[in-house]
Amino acid sequence: MLRTNLRTFTRPQFIRGLASAPTIPKSQKAIIFYENGGELQYKDIPVPEPKPNEILVNVKYSGVCHTDLHAWKGDWPLATKLPLVGGHEGAGIVVAKGSEVKNFEIGDYAGIKWLNGSCMSCEYCEKGFESNCPHADLSGYTHDGSFQQYATADAVQAAKIPQGTDLADVSPILCAGVTVYKALKSAHLEPGQWVAISGAAGGLGSLAVQYAKAMGLRVLGIDGGAEKEKLFKSLGGEVFIDFTKEKNIVEAIQNATNGGPHGVINVSVAPAAISQSTEYVRPTGKVVLVGLPADAVCKSEVFSHVVKSISIIGSYVGNRADTREAIDFFSRGLVKSPIKVVGLSELPKVYELMEQGKILGRYVVDTSK
Amino acid sequence: MLRTNLRTFTRPQFIRGLASAPTIPKSQKAIIFYENGGELQYKDIPVPEPKPNEILVNVKYSGVCHTDLHAWKGDWPLATKLPLVGGHEGAGIVVAKGSEVKNFEIGDYAGIKWLNGSCMSCEYCEKGFESNCPHADLSGYTHDGSFQQYATADAVQAAKIPQGTDLADVSPILCAGVTVYKALKSAHLEPGQWVAISGAAGGLGSLAVQYAKAMGLRVLGIDGGAEKEKLFKSLGGEVFIDFTKEKNIVEAIQNATNGGPHGVINVSVAPAAISQSTEYVRPTGKVVLVGLPADAVCKSEVFSHVVKSISIIGSYVGNRADTREAIDFFSRGLVKSPIKVVGLSELPKVYELMEQGKILGRYVVDTSK
Amino acid sequence: MLRTNLRTFTRPQFIRGLASAPTIPKSQKAIIFYENGGELQYKDIPVPEPKPNEILVNVKYSGVCHTDLHAWKGDWPLATKLPLVGGHEGAGIVVAKGSEVKNFEIGDYAGIKWLNGSCMSCEYCEKGFESNCPHADLSGYTHDGSFQQYATADAVQAAKIPQGTDLADVSPILCAGVTVYKALKSAHLEPGQWVAISGAAGGLGSLAVQYAKAMGLRVLGIDGGAEKEKLFKSLGGEVFIDFTKEKNIVEAIQNATNGGPHGVINVSVAPAAISQSTEYVRPTGKVVLVGLPADAVCKSEVFSHVVKSISIIGSYVGNRADTREAIDFFSRGLVKSPIKVVGLSELPKVYELMEQGKILGRYVVDTSK
Amino acid sequence: MLRTNLRTFTRPQFIRGLASAPTIPKSQKAIIFYENGGELQYKDIPVPEPKPNEILVNVKYSGVCHTDLHAWKGDWPLATKLPLVGGHEGAGIVVAKGSEVKNFEIGDYAGIKWLNGSCMSCEYCEKGFESNCPHADLSGYTHDGSFQQYATADAVQAAKIPQGTDLADVSPILCAGVTVYKALKSAHLEPGQWVAISGAAGGLGSLAVQYAKAMGLRVLGIDGGAEKEKLFKSLGGEVFIDFTKEKNIVEAIQNATNGGPHGVINVSVAPAAISQSTEYVRPTGKVVLVGLPADAVCKSEVFSHVVKSISIIGSYVGNRADTREAIDFFSRGLVKSPIKVVGLSELPKVYELMEQGKILGRYVVDTSK
Repeated sequence: MLRTNLRTFTRPQFIRGLASAPTIPKSQKAIIFYENGGELQYKDIPVPEPKPNEILVNVKYSGVCHTDLHAWKGDWPLATKLPLVGGHEGAGIVVAKGSEVKNFEIGDYAGIKWLNGSCMSCEYCEKGFESNCPHADLSGYTHDGSFQQYATADAVQAAKIPQGTDLADVSPILCAGVTVYKALKSAHLEPGQWVAISGAAGGLGSLAVQYAKAMGLRVLGIDGGAEKEKLFKSLGGEVFIDFTKEKNIVEAIQNATNGGPHGVINVSVAPAAISQSTEYVRPTGKVVLVGLPADAVCKSEVFSHVVKSISIIGSYVGNRADTREAIDFFSRGLVKSPIKVVGLSELPKVYELMEQGKILGRYVVDTSK
Repeated sequence: MLRTNLRTFTRPQFIRGLASAPTIPKSQKAIIFYENGGELQYKDIPVPEPKPNEILVNVKYSGVCHTDLHAWKGDWPLATKLPLVGGHEGAGIVVAKGSEVKNFEIGDYAGIKWLNGSCMSCEYCEKGFESNCPHADLSGYTHDGSFQQYATADAVQAAKIPQGTDLADVSPILCAGVTVYKALKSAHLEPGQWVAISGAAGGLGSLAVQYAKAMGLRVLGIDGGAEKEKLFKSLGGEVFIDFTKEKNIVEAIQNATNGGPHGVINVSVAPAAISQSTEYVRPTGKVVLVGLPADAVCKSEVFSHVVKSISIIGSYVGNRADTREAIDFFSRGLVKSPIKVVGLSELPKVYELMEQGKILGRYVVDTSK
Repeated sequence: MLRTNLRTFTRPQFIRGLASAPTIPKSQKAIIFYENGGELQYKDIPVPEPKPNEILVNVKYSGVCHTDLHAWKGDWPLATKLPLVGGHEGAGIVVAKGSEVKNFEIGDYAGIKWLNGSCMSCEYCEKGFESNCPHADLSGYTHDGSFQQYATADAVQAAKIPQGTDLADVSPILCAGVTVYKALKSAHLEPGQWVAISGAAGGLGSLAVQYAKAMGLRVLGIDGGAEKEKLFKSLGGEVFIDFTKEKNIVEAIQNATNGGPHGVINVSVAPAAISQSTEYVRPTGKVVLVGLPADAVCKSEVFSHVVKSISIIGSYVGNRADTREAIDFFSRGLVKSPIKVVGLSELPKVYELMEQGKILGRYVVDTSK
Repeated sequence: MLRTNLRTFTRPQFIRGLASAPTIPKSQKAIIFYENGGELQYKDIPVPEPKPNEILVNVKYSGVCHTDLHAWKGDWPLATKLPLVGGHEGAGIVVAKGSEVKNFEIGDYAGIKWLNGSCMSCEYCEKGFESNCPHADLSGYTHDGSFQQYATADAVQAAKIPQGTDLADVSPILCAGVTVYKALKSAHLEPGQWVAISGAAGGLGSLAVQYAKAMGLRVLGIDGGAEKEKLFKSLGGEVFIDFTKEKNIVEAIQNATNGGPHGVINVSVAPAAISQSTEYVRPTGKVVLVGLPADAVCKSEVFSHVVKSISIIGSYVGNRADTREAIDFFSRGLVKSPIKVVGLSELPKVYELMEQGKILGRYVVDTSK
């Protein structure tokens, strides 16, 4: 019945905004699972209907994130909805919208991101910490996500993507890009200061290097191997510390940065690497935690934590403004996202590779295949 | 020879500033030790001479701080000078000054604080982080301190104390007061927000409660016992959590503050209490470390550190501005410092009590006894 | 028809939330005008219906603000809707709500404030500057306001008022209170610093004095006459500068504050007073503009603006967080609002008094009379 | 007599730091004037002697700034010392130092900047606002400056210049560079935001464009003429608004920046241009005043100042940290300073050109000629 209403109110939009109305099918392809760790089924499911405050996005491409693996396995201290369609890096086109939506038109490009919607009324939402909203609704976790051809999102939270953007390339920006960009902002650095990226040549790391560079920072990368060094340098990194070669990493980093980096972005979630970052960071510097390991502890020596006056800061994805800004850097060509595109039906294989730790860079699924 | 010069240049000051010139003796009483953990000797030592940039302060009273015990024992990863006169909460009167000193006159009240002098030229000094200066000169640690009748300090770092101030009462403000005040500032809280003081009824804690109150914060205190609760409430504290009674401290604190305090000042240095504070702090909240245990580790769960977006911030004493401001709150009567005055000669007994953990409130030594 | 729907969906709420359902009449009393400067008619008009994202508030009391006079006269460079029901300080009870409203229940207390709704999606809304939203919908200006018994507001923007609050007393907090509180926040002052309130004993000024005090600031007030001084002192003000007596106001203020206040809140909109505040403010200090005169210019000498490194900051009402916080200070009893209650039907007389500049304190209308 | 002492204490330095001791002559060449507006004499004057806290710099090159013209004319509301040697952009080599100087060695490169020394003890110095110190000692104004071969400076304030730097090229960075860099910092912009430079192709403007670019900002320049546009674009500017061609500057700027720049640096001191910048700046944006016209007023409409919530911020040169950072950007090759070198003896001609408004770019004098 809502469906009927929807059709009614959207018709005038079509006339104004599009040559012809998009045809919204009743069913669509998706990857869905019915219990945590259960089979990832590629099958037909109904197309969802947008609420008055939601848009319906025809997802063209979706990035695949480590979080998707956690959602499927259910190893985080936060229950998922079941059955669940995962995915939270979906880029596509608005094909329908609820009666109260004023910020999107049919035909606009839009992104489905981790934060699908939030209450907009609690003290966290009020201050731009929507990710910390106790009523946060999460794509691919508590709300069916972007591993389907048609997905809904609260219009206020959905990402605006400029017309003409390559929807495959932009998809990882919606979570990976926003997350590292926000982490960099959370370090409160000034242009000209040093930032270390621990895990600099991985999927998140390589985005972090480019954002840092675009923000006027000097970038030191920590990772292992000559190939990674080459990638790092090609992205604008200045100093590479190869942990497979360097004997005293703390000393090497402090020497290269004349006293330690002003900030560290711990893309790597290895507890030892995190603790080490509290050692090499410059006095008064900022150590940012951004990854979400299922079970890890961050340790620092209280004495030097105080005497060096450092801060250890948790940064959790980003808000609407961070998203807009992260996409803007991408649109201006300052950040490129190296991706591998496969069909949505191949997603289970990607999960396997991810579990085996065999993934370099970012996989993106094409929902049409 | 410098002495003679000094007398020469200071004479005109005496005529302008004082009824009669202060008589500076050649020797004085002090508590001195010759090796870490060695005998604390109460004896006559020479009066030091100020350099061109220093003032000579006739110390009347000096607070006794836990740091003094560490300096004597030598259990911190930082070597002390030897022999050493300890003390870094000295309040007294300027009796001489070097040729380049322009900000003090003979007869002014002045304070000897932890940071005796710094280079004023490194990147830390430039930005007001003088405590983090690699060339920091520390009273009662690398520079003879305030457990003597006459002590020197760099004029730029020495604290200005308004004429007429009670020099015994103000002495603990010079380190304990400044330290907790700076810790509160480091939490970046806004008036009306909740701050928890872990160890609220001890020497540092009771000052922290008062500063927090004067800064417009709502104060929750954590400590043990009815007497401590009574003291806490008398200082303006709003909610007291008695860890000897409360079964679920995290829950009790979160309930009392409608979701957790926005900031926590860990005056207590117990690792378990510190880790617990990362659990009960409000999302986006700040946990401040301020004590300097010889050997302790701060632990937080990475997952909730990120998802709650909290920060763990090290705060180390305070700078010149913090000192001026902390004294100003004291001068305005908003912060009172509960002290016990004993003679300087009794200092070894105070160290004993301190080592036994038997000290409540702050001991202050009278250098004339 | 929507009405019918509304009744349908709200019925279950009544059963859950209230002993009996509120009876929402079809028509109500309001003060309405049909052209700018035209007759203010006290008459029956239809009760509005909430959209899916709105609440319907049974307004009990509404403050009267100078802005209401501007809206009626139409002398601002911003067109009002016509016909118009004014008012934007309405406090009342939620009697109905749209289908998408999750943050209010029937029976909750709610406030109608200046910002009735905003897009929540532009760069200003995203960053908490909702007042600067180009799509801002303004109560009593572009959206019928609180000078009626039943008014609608976007649920996300409507103010939450704790149950049991005196609805007459709280009403001026919704605009006057929030505005001065935000102005104080915009000055970025620290507890213990001096703030000057220019126009300290008027309606806005007397609220500003109390908020400043609760924020730990030292308050200097500027106004004229012994009665005003008495009021100022009773509210917690520390130094009063009587412009009817003081010959050199700049010097008097700088002397009283040891160099000038760190911040100035220009509640007074007299251009001469504003320019003068740029003279007496302390170097590196902040001058805040907050009033909205129809036609006035702020002037400062460029040379001293630069050499003193001052800032002149425009502050425009407040956002959702500011509103919550301003109400919280009121609820905690730290801010009292001196009001005069008259019947809604007497509003035209209040406008007259306001135009004649004869109003001291804040008028509040009781919508039942 | 001090001279003798000086020689004595500096001798060991020579042995450690240099192959041979620098020969410091008794007299030197300088440009000096004896009354404001009086003859600029090129003559021999005595070499000054450093105080215990000062260094003596053999100035090799000095930039010429508009401020020097004001100092000579005496048209600012601040008296100069007389007779006066002007200049405050002096780059050279340390040849002697006072007994208390620890942060410079003989042979180090050093810069004489506008702030020659400050008290380091007032509330402004304490917070890094040394330029606002009431006891500020100004090179070429209250302290003989860099238009001589040997000049003194407080070691704490003197700029550190890396060995090997081109001393002619770096000289304008010491004031012009620091000033625009600080102005950009004072605007509190984030990488990716728009900044407008009003007067973009002049001496200060062309430095501002480069610093802005290096800080990750998008730069819009306002100036007149095709040649200026060409220069602007070559420095990394993105959008040029030619005021000789554009009819509606406000609209053109707002269109080019999608709503107005987030910040404006008013390098131009024309009052009309300044007022206009308050119109085109983006809501919540920052307008920075940085030039020091002898007599000019900044005007803004109070209504839009408030409704747009803009700030007008005065920025006055920079502090020690700003200086270090500004030089670092220069040293990294991110900022180039286009200069014309002439002999010190030709300085009077440069003043003439400056007075006639005929100067493009920056003149630098070579003190050896």
